[in-house]
Amino acid sequence: MAKEKYVESITSRDVDFAQWYTDVVRKAEMADYSSVRGCMILRPLGCAIWENIQKGLDQRFKALGHENVCMPMFIPESLLDKEAEHVEGFAPEVAWVTMGGTEQLQERLAVRPTSEALFSDHYAKIVQSYRDLPKLYNQWVSVVRWEKTTRPFLRTTEFWWQEGHTVHETAEEARQETLRMLDTYAEFCRTELAIPVVKGRKTDKEKFAGAEATYTIEAMMHDGKSLQAATSHYFGDGFARAFGIQFSNRENKLQYVYQTSWGASTRLIGALIMVHSDDNGLLLPPHIAPTQVMVVPVAQHKPGVLEACQEIVDKLAVVCRIKMDASDKMPGWKFSEHEMHGIPLRLELGPKDLANGQAIAVRRDTGEKQPVSLDDLVGTIPELLEQIQKDLYDRAWQLMQERTYTATDWDSFSSIIQEKPGFVKAMWCGDQACEDKIKESFAATARCMPFEQEHLADTCVCCGKPAKSMVIWGKAY
Amino acid sequence: MAKEKYVESITSRDVDFAQWYTDVVRKAEMADYSSVRGCMILRPLGCAIWENIQKGLDQRFKALGHENVCMPMFIPESLLDKEAEHVEGFAPEVAWVTMGGTEQLQERLAVRPTSEALFSDHYAKIVQSYRDLPKLYNQWVSVVRWEKTTRPFLRTTEFWWQEGHTVHETAEEARQETLRMLDTYAEFCRTELAIPVVKGRKTDKEKFAGAEATYTIEAMMHDGKSLQAATSHYFGDGFARAFGIQFSNRENKLQYVYQTSWGASTRLIGALIMVHSDDNGLLLPPHIAPTQVMVVPVAQHKPGVLEACQEIVDKLAVVCRIKMDASDKMPGWKFSEHEMHGIPLRLELGPKDLANGQAIAVRRDTGEKQPVSLDDLVGTIPELLEQIQKDLYDRAWQLMQERTYTATDWDSFSSIIQEKPGFVKAMWCGDQACEDKIKESFAATARCMPFEQEHLADTCVCCGKPAKSMVIWGKAY
Repeated sequence: MAKEKYVESITSRDVDFAQWYTDVVRKAEMADYSSVRGCMILRPLGCAIWENIQKGLDQRFKALGHENVCMPMFIPESLLDKEAEHVEGFAPEVAWVTMGGTEQLQERLAVRPTSEALFSDHYAKIVQSYRDLPKLYNQWVSVVRWEKTTRPFLRTTEFWWQEGHTVHETAEEARQETLRMLDTYAEFCRTELAIPVVKGRKTDKEKFAGAEATYTIEAMMHDGKSLQAATSHYFGDGFARAFGIQFSNRENKLQYVYQTSWGASTRLIGALIMVHSDDNGLLLPPHIAPTQVMVVPVAQHKPGVLEACQEIVDKLAVVCRIKMDASDKMPGWKFSEHEMHGIPLRLELGPKDLANGQAIAVRRDTGEKQPVSLDDLVGTIPELLEQIQKDLYDRAWQLMQERTYTATDWDSFSSIIQEKPGFVKAMWCGDQACEDKIKESFAATARCMPFEQEHLADTCVCCGKPAKSMVIWGKAY
Repeated sequence: MAKEKYVESITSRDVDFAQWYTDVVRKAEMADYSSVRGCMILRPLGCAIWENIQKGLDQRFKALGHENVCMPMFIPESLLDKEAEHVEGFAPEVAWVTMGGTEQLQERLAVRPTSEALFSDHYAKIVQSYRDLPKLYNQWVSVVRWEKTTRPFLRTTEFWWQEGHTVHETAEEARQETLRMLDTYAEFCRTELAIPVVKGRKTDKEKFAGAEATYTIEAMMHDGKSLQAATSHYFGDGFARAFGIQFSNRENKLQYVYQTSWGASTRLIGALIMVHSDDNGLLLPPHIAPTQVMVVPVAQHKPGVLEACQEIVDKLAVVCRIKMDASDKMPGWKFSEHEMHGIPLRLELGPKDLANGQAIAVRRDTGEKQPVSLDDLVGTIPELLEQIQKDLYDRAWQLMQERTYTATDWDSFSSIIQEKPGFVKAMWCGDQACEDKIKESFAATARCMPFEQEHLADTCVCCGKPAKSMVIWGKAY
């Protein structure tokens, strides 16, 4: 009874995916709306997931030699103006500070929408010689983009992210950095978030304002839509010329640096929800779950039950993130509450289990129950968590395969993209007119030109002219 | 030669303390000025120290049951206006966002100077019953206060901090939380930063805008000035009434919550500099140092030297944070560079040392050199680091004792506070007029009413009326 009551307020995923998403965010207490238009509050669970994402990425960045810094949250308008394409791309969505205390500012300050301008300004000051290169900086901050319509985690006026900004001696090294960081994101999504991604390059239409090339990892959500999970940009020496980042090279000549930037944000939490979760609420892969195992005592007033549960917690605390729920709620209520919050594994233990020297392990992803011996928990539980992690990835990978289609002519492309949610692989001539036509016709975009190219046909699926590359098309968040 | 050259650009601490401070910040590459007025850049070393401070405090907070959240960086003006004293205190130093993209906002948004308003607004929504209490939230963010004059770490327009905000069922519990967090800060400063502090209560004149009581830990800098290292506030139900944070209590009646907030900021890095550092640059206590040990090979081209140094690093990496400097700079240059950057311990190893099976350990704090056997590094080095940590604390504590004076009448008070930099303990009647007079006469303020009260005299050192409490007076950053 309790369970049904608790869960009934969630819309079914198959009935209304958008409403289901919002329900999970609210009901699992991950985020809340604030009194500031378009800005969300990361509640403890959402924040703890973000902290785990930070930890996982940060240690990968540091292992590759990156250092963290903190730049100001403001950018003077004149500084933002220095790189023409960049300012054109971002100016329409900037929040402007015009007053400090009671005084009108002489120059407006942008609340950073991204920090290329600040990093470039700083690099121009601190880089003198090739000996100072490379500089591999990153920062963990929130940024602001004035959005018209917002959705928690997916598109909010303020969001949290990391932005890496690096400068290099050679174009080759900067290009390698761009791809190395894309690989880092892809590996992180696969290993920690159990989310398979497609690596590829953005078309010129979709690339970052000011970049020579933008690379992306695209993930498929449960409804078949695409989500850009992280991006990595190669800037060439564009920003370096605009900001004057020069150094004496090995021949003792002045030269511009080559630059990159790359970022991943709280959007990843949106992806976690839309890839793995279900009608029972949030479902978190064990590697990223703040609590991996919840112990729920059954008939906890019976002698020995609570003590045995506490013993389980003490034993397992060294090998996983575990908690016990000894509150006075009914077990059924607890079950559905912890399912809603996405905890990957539940351990139930009542008097009968205790007598049998076992607990009942219940998987959040399959609902499958199995007895586990109390003597061997330190061995079985981490194994079970790894199994869940692997199964979640496999399930997501399977779905992505099933929903990746191929189209070689306009008719098949047109019917697939309208009727079958997912990725559509098709050849493209490289002309933006075709991208525009597809966008107008189907509200679909070129998600990326995958690194793993296939030769599906000789001609562009749209205009019939000779094809240059294979593109993955889709509708996107 | 190299060493002298590297160091000569630092002003001596005894000649010009303010200039010395700025020199250390810049020369140790902790922070840099940005193109944004009054805003600093945390460079890799400054940022790494801040990350260690975060780590140390965050795990203490979590061990006490606190959870992290992320609130928006903006506060609508109407929300900030709700608590009268609070807005009066902060409005003059607020940066205002008035435009979003190209549109003029209907309501100005304050860039948060502190987040009581946002937390209160959120708590009003999520707290319904005594079962929801306490809520023990914290966030790690930067805040903005429009300052006229700024100094890196000590007073900047934007600074980084944590702000804890909690709501409780009873006044008693909230008061306990306020003091518990003050104790947490004091213990952290003592244990990790090697900074002794005085715990006490602020006078009404010095308390936080909107608080019933503000508690502080005050630390003494090397020049005898005081620095408020962290504060903890008890709000009673003031914010709860202003924001309507009500809950059904155990008698099923509506009641207002009792509230606290507490914060520590990047100022602590300023304290680290001004308590421990010297004419050779930064000096970091081992517990907080991003790099605790730097291995410097001597005559590194000689056979076996680099390999032996690498072996030291590999061996010690499990017990401390260690690096090797195998660059092509001269050893003397390296020595002074790593001293400048505050690394607590240097290990030198050359061919002769290698032959003797030893390295030379050089303490950053005393310059003392001692041979350490290569066979026992895992035992001796951590011990040596602990010794440095302890000695730094003892040295700071000693200085604070020596420079803490007692005055029982106006004449002695007047001469001490003008001639002897440090803390002056004196009795106070509790009247703000006396605080004002002392501030006008000597630019000194009531740092706190220490928890450890002494009865120095019967009368106020300023007006001669009956004394209510002992105050520590001083000049402050």
